[in-house]
Amino acid sequence: MNVDDLRRNAGELDSLSPLAHLRTRFELPEGIVYLNGNSLGALPTGARGIAQDVIERQWGTDLISSWNDNGWWDAPVRIGDRVAGLVGAAPGQVVVGDSTSVNLFKAFSAAVRLRPGRHLIVTDRESFPTDLYIAESVAELADWQVVRLDPPDMADFLTERGDEVGLVAVSSVDYRTGEAWDLPAITRAAHRAGAVVCWDLCHSAGAMDLQLDTHDVDLAVGCGYKYLNGGPGAPAFLYVASRHQADFEHALTGWHGHAEPFAMSEDYEPSPGIARARVGTPQLLSMLVAEAGLDAFEGVTMAEVRAASLSLTGTFLDAVDALVPGVEVVTPRTPERRGSQVSLRHEEAFGVVSALIERGFVGDFRRPDIIRLGFAAPYVSHVEAVDTAVALREVLVSGEHLDPRHVQGTVT
Amino acid sequence: MNVDDLRRNAGELDSLSPLAHLRTRFELPEGIVYLNGNSLGALPTGARGIAQDVIERQWGTDLISSWNDNGWWDAPVRIGDRVAGLVGAAPGQVVVGDSTSVNLFKAFSAAVRLRPGRHLIVTDRESFPTDLYIAESVAELADWQVVRLDPPDMADFLTERGDEVGLVAVSSVDYRTGEAWDLPAITRAAHRAGAVVCWDLCHSAGAMDLQLDTHDVDLAVGCGYKYLNGGPGAPAFLYVASRHQADFEHALTGWHGHAEPFAMSEDYEPSPGIARARVGTPQLLSMLVAEAGLDAFEGVTMAEVRAASLSLTGTFLDAVDALVPGVEVVTPRTPERRGSQVSLRHEEAFGVVSALIERGFVGDFRRPDIIRLGFAAPYVSHVEAVDTAVALREVLVSGEHLDPRHVQGTVT
Repeated sequence: MNVDDLRRNAGELDSLSPLAHLRTRFELPEGIVYLNGNSLGALPTGARGIAQDVIERQWGTDLISSWNDNGWWDAPVRIGDRVAGLVGAAPGQVVVGDSTSVNLFKAFSAAVRLRPGRHLIVTDRESFPTDLYIAESVAELADWQVVRLDPPDMADFLTERGDEVGLVAVSSVDYRTGEAWDLPAITRAAHRAGAVVCWDLCHSAGAMDLQLDTHDVDLAVGCGYKYLNGGPGAPAFLYVASRHQADFEHALTGWHGHAEPFAMSEDYEPSPGIARARVGTPQLLSMLVAEAGLDAFEGVTMAEVRAASLSLTGTFLDAVDALVPGVEVVTPRTPERRGSQVSLRHEEAFGVVSALIERGFVGDFRRPDIIRLGFAAPYVSHVEAVDTAVALREVLVSGEHLDPRHVQGTVT
Repeated sequence: MNVDDLRRNAGELDSLSPLAHLRTRFELPEGIVYLNGNSLGALPTGARGIAQDVIERQWGTDLISSWNDNGWWDAPVRIGDRVAGLVGAAPGQVVVGDSTSVNLFKAFSAAVRLRPGRHLIVTDRESFPTDLYIAESVAELADWQVVRLDPPDMADFLTERGDEVGLVAVSSVDYRTGEAWDLPAITRAAHRAGAVVCWDLCHSAGAMDLQLDTHDVDLAVGCGYKYLNGGPGAPAFLYVASRHQADFEHALTGWHGHAEPFAMSEDYEPSPGIARARVGTPQLLSMLVAEAGLDAFEGVTMAEVRAASLSLTGTFLDAVDALVPGVEVVTPRTPERRGSQVSLRHEEAFGVVSALIERGFVGDFRRPDIIRLGFAAPYVSHVEAVDTAVALREVLVSGEHLDPRHVQGTVT
């Protein structure tokens, strides 16, 4: 197909999309195609109003009475329930707060205690670094070891040495390649071996139809500021399946997780429910503003979001095939193996990303040679996906990416 | 002295105070005397402007380029340096982020590694609960034990069994009684025993002249939302003395603490400096807004803040002695042994606090029988201190506090 055909098809897909009306729930700068929702989600229209209310009325006027009167105390679990709805979890299993890294520590430190007598954490070799670092730290504290495998090799390992494995910790989508691992199959393999599984949903929550309860996931953590559009550094979340909560004994025993926090008792007794995964006082401004990102999903199902996301990445891949046939696509073409991003490999990936940004197509670069383009279905259109492929072709044909102004600097 | 004399004296002290002009840097509701800055500091005038800029320009328009262009990446250490200036620390020793509880975990988990071969954590019996809980958690992970002592008994214990003690962890001000412990003396006693000390500054940072460097403090944590006025749940801070940083190996090994975070390397190598105390992506909206609270200290020294605070609590104590002679004062009368609050004990403390709040004097209640009144020098005046004693007398004389509407409920 030529560019006109691709654009016409894309326009039809946009007009039929059940998510089309979500675009008005976000504010993006004019002239930008924003393909970095996998790094920092776009600004939801409700964010500034919440911030103003939290600062002026809740903080400035109501002051400490806000803990009760404006729901500050309950916010981590109340907002957790809203996140639960987006990841396929019944209420009472998700708490919001702290960073992803801190929540990984909670999950892993509790998991090793859920499986005494075992001594291995299996994790994905190409996981996001923080997952690897936290796994090593928890293993050191517990005198366990970490085994790093490619996810497709995990089932065999679990068959052979599963009785040594207490925890299988995997990122549901590889942050570099955009490959989605088989969450149901790996979860089943972990369970057959008697291990618990912890999924890192940073690159899937808000983009994929995760169905954590259906797939009997044990533990999961995820990020609030990517596809959940919660704002810069928005609090992360932690899912603990109900069946594990009574035995979920993580190491960050802060007073907000206490069964009776205001008894100020000298010994720690964890809350009976998901609130035991709370630690200290939550950063309320960030947390409450993050709700604006959740509001933006009102009225659509995650099945619809996932379908729209696959339609977008599929449209982009088709356009790349038609317009930039030589470029190496790293992300799997099979839809169920894709997250919500497309990664391309190019020797001058940094320069390509820089040149695309200059043209208004905002993706990002991951060392050493990956061009990452995230397609957040709530605010990216099919026409924009085609336009991105067109821009990519123009950059590569013109050699813009080789210009000195696009030499590698400090893009994060 | 009678009420008129007390008010006249107080007015003179207000007119002479070098902090008098700071009151205009805060917004408080009309008709309120706010004595809860030890729980949630007042709203600084700069907060809403920062929030608007972070949301609309930095997030909405600049998007991910804000990590470099708007200083997001450096914020935890840059703002840490500003906090350092308020606690008597040279730059490069304080990082801002996470909650107090999480920072206690970092400090304690690193401290036990700083002192291998020892096996005791000494902590104050009446510490804020989260400190006790985290100490127990770290002790369990390290196979250490926690010894709970009254701070005045610590020196003797350290003389007798100091060679077993690796960490002495104390709250610099008792959150219930308002008693300030002898930071220099306890630090020296810990050092004589070869232990490191970790001070919890939640009730002193922003109120007392701490001089951490001068007193050779090893580690300290503190709260951003009390006397530092950073807003609801504002990020906490962690101080690690330069001499310990190379060996400060805490257990929360998140990628933001890595020496080269964007190398995305698979093994953790901590940053050489204070940045190793970072963990995951900081909650930037809360963090950047918290700077408004630090701005409010511009142009005054902590010695001036401390002097003003003692003048306020002293004025209040004098007024209580004159007007409500029967009430039990829990906080020490010796100035150097006071933090920035005055605690009173009363059988119907809950009712008294509730009746005072109804009259516009906002303090808080701590079980079972403590009336807590915090005097944040930047926005509380001497006249307000006298008025509070007058209100207290009127409540007690009239028996308002016994009215059914002031029966104990769920004040937090």
